[in-house]
Amino acid sequence: MSTPSKVVEGSSVSIGFSALVALLQQVFVRHGTSPEVAAILANNCASAERDGAHSHGIFRIPGYISTLGSGWVNGRAVPQVTDVASGFVRVDAGNGFAQPALEAARALLVQKAQSAGIALLAIHNSHHFAALWPDVEPFAEQGLVALSVVNSMTCVVPHGADRPLFGTNPIAFAAPRADGLPIVFDLATSAIAHGDVQIAARKGERLPPGMGVDGLGQPTQDPKAILEGGALLPFGGHKGSALSMMVELLAAALTGGNFSFEFDWSDHPGARTPWTGQLLIVIDPSKTSGQAFAERSQELVRQMHAAGLRRLPGDRRHRTRAKAEQEGIVVDALALEQLHQWAQQ
Amino acid sequence: MSTPSKVVEGSSVSIGFSALVALLQQVFVRHGTSPEVAAILANNCASAERDGAHSHGIFRIPGYISTLGSGWVNGRAVPQVTDVASGFVRVDAGNGFAQPALEAARALLVQKAQSAGIALLAIHNSHHFAALWPDVEPFAEQGLVALSVVNSMTCVVPHGADRPLFGTNPIAFAAPRADGLPIVFDLATSAIAHGDVQIAARKGERLPPGMGVDGLGQPTQDPKAILEGGALLPFGGHKGSALSMMVELLAAALTGGNFSFEFDWSDHPGARTPWTGQLLIVIDPSKTSGQAFAERSQELVRQMHAAGLRRLPGDRRHRTRAKAEQEGIVVDALALEQLHQWAQQ
Repeated sequence: MSTPSKVVEGSSVSIGFSALVALLQQVFVRHGTSPEVAAILANNCASAERDGAHSHGIFRIPGYISTLGSGWVNGRAVPQVTDVASGFVRVDAGNGFAQPALEAARALLVQKAQSAGIALLAIHNSHHFAALWPDVEPFAEQGLVALSVVNSMTCVVPHGADRPLFGTNPIAFAAPRADGLPIVFDLATSAIAHGDVQIAARKGERLPPGMGVDGLGQPTQDPKAILEGGALLPFGGHKGSALSMMVELLAAALTGGNFSFEFDWSDHPGARTPWTGQLLIVIDPSKTSGQAFAERSQELVRQMHAAGLRRLPGDRRHRTRAKAEQEGIVVDALALEQLHQWAQQ
Repeated sequence: MSTPSKVVEGSSVSIGFSALVALLQQVFVRHGTSPEVAAILANNCASAERDGAHSHGIFRIPGYISTLGSGWVNGRAVPQVTDVASGFVRVDAGNGFAQPALEAARALLVQKAQSAGIALLAIHNSHHFAALWPDVEPFAEQGLVALSVVNSMTCVVPHGADRPLFGTNPIAFAAPRADGLPIVFDLATSAIAHGDVQIAARKGERLPPGMGVDGLGQPTQDPKAILEGGALLPFGGHKGSALSMMVELLAAALTGGNFSFEFDWSDHPGARTPWTGQLLIVIDPSKTSGQAFAERSQELVRQMHAAGLRRLPGDRRHRTRAKAEQEGIVVDALALEQLHQWAQQ
């Protein structure tokens, strides 16, 4: 299937969202996922690219391909959903990706949240290689409040420790508001996201101070030194470190998934996806009386603007999205050509 | 009631936990709370003092007294608990303190968490003037995982804004572990807790850089400049700021409580307690199959120590507590004398 892409200028081309999804879907299927898994991952990856979240967009495709090729992850896994209790759903992702596990449980999770007021989804035996905000934003679009944490792979030195143990362990949150798109943030509890270190290394850029250490545990601003034997630091010192620990407890200990330090992919060269767990908590704010939640969150936004805040969390993504919806998603022409090749072979 | 205190050295004396609770209870009742409220607040305050959390110990008593005297808070409020849904409890604290509201709902909250797997407690119309870890630690002692957030009063400049809007908005978390006291942390999303700024100001000490700004919005290390017209900064830049925003949404918008910027105590000189809301989420980890949660969290602790971490979150408090249980709580003799006076008049 060819795409309706057109050359915009120099080496960039524009592609529509649906066309990018379709192309990525072909890539995933061609490299060993089921059509169902491909559709979910393609939508996720294209959404990140569309929103300007480049470190989780098509930049991730080589990692997905090498991981699928290594046999580390099951691209055809069918998630097994268990209805544990009136507010508790559990999914065994079957050594597959976390996003299909969430999709398999979504309807039940929403139903429970709307009935019980709050519900928890515990995913284990899963691989998460994407941004976390796409997992929470849809709940806020339905009027729900959602929180998610996922642990990843050992690359962060706990505050006060000598060597890495935690993953980048992001926290994502989404809440509806009355007069606009949901309030959404997705923050790594590391000082910088791993994908951003990789992008800086590729571009030959130095990092700000305080992001990581080299292989000897010494502070460094060289992204390559961090990637080659070094490690990241938590954001915000002991506080970010405590939150990263909480993510290990919630995403791994509570779900039955691996801690970030527990899996060994040395027998699977090319494996890039952390084999851990993920936790989602979904709350139905309509259970509280008083003013509607969305009106209240809108009031907070209004006051944040009045205090001089120009950009809310999620604003830049939403603006980039609106532009992409008008003009298409602008991607590197060579990268798009490469996707077409991967879709074929 | 006199106390079994004895002079230890110079101006310090040692007092047993129960004696301190009894004394503080007298102080609270003498200044306008009901005996029930007094018992809860006295236990809370004495626990903080015992654990070495001095900024939330007897240091807080003058603030409680001036607030009660101002008529800002109802020290005799009887919390109204509503059973909203199978995972959702709501409490109207009746313009009283948050801790009695939590106590009134605790049994129902635990019952729901154990039945539904997760349960939420939304407290509104409440005043929280204490540390947050005492609210979550008891759940972990029962084998549950607990998370709480509370918003406070405008004193933190959102990252990228010109003037303060958020409160110090702490996040507290507690989880059980197999071979020791629960893992517990309680972190202000401000770069420093407000109480610690007050203590530094009293001692005439300077703060580390990055904690706050003066009345002109310029960075300052002078605690008095922060307290007198200045403001705090969030911890960890835009990430801590996003978490602080989340606390406003969960603790105020979701509960029906005031945002940190919404209450006006100018008609109540002496008022010090923020009139906001509080959210608690309690999870029953036994709902997941696989290894017991407490064994898994113990494994994480083991690995954190192996990575060179000497002190876990909560460790210092627990060590101080153990020492206090052996030797009594060591307090300033004049401060104790002052408590005795406040208990009488």
